[in-house]
Amino acid sequence: MSEQPKNRTTVDIYGQQYVIVGTEPTSHIRLVASMVDEKMREINSMNPSLDTTKLAVLTSVNTVHEYLKLKDQVEQLEKELKRIKD
Amino acid sequence: MSEQPKNRTTVDIYGQQYVIVGTEPTSHIRLVASMVDEKMREINSMNPSLDTTKLAVLTSVNTVHEYLKLKDQVEQLEKELKRIKD
Repeated sequence: MSEQPKNRTTVDIYGQQYVIVGTEPTSHIRLVASMVDEKMREINSMNPSLDTTKLAVLTSVNTVHEYLKLKDQVEQLEKELKRIKD
Repeated sequence: MSEQPKNRTTVDIYGQQYVIVGTEPTSHIRLVASMVDEKMREINSMNPSLDTTKLAVLTSVNTVHEYLKLKDQVEQLEKELKRIKD
């Protein structure tokens, strides 16, 4: 098993640079970073008094919430597929 | 259309308290908060020199990445269902 090559991608999120290391393509890393940046700006516009740490934590809270909703959807789709196939 | 009642839930994430307001049940909010807290501690254990803001931003990056993977999975399942039904 050969190891996948790792990319180092520098991204800008909320005015701060981050070097992200991973096997994902640079285009994917950039997309993820832009989504985080956008969500932080969106939450900031609704709560301008939050500091950056709180803003980033609430961005995570928001994303984990969306993640769990999507996970429910995956489970429903898998159930439906199983029902059709059985 | 009646408005859904909003819950105010106080959660602790990485040693800081947050009041989350939303229509989701308190149990769901607590689950989301515990997942964010856990992920922040996991990333911190791998990168102990990061400050809390960077930690929180990288937690968001990580979560958005997982979200996009799940979204791909939903699209694949929907395609498969459509193919079977057509």
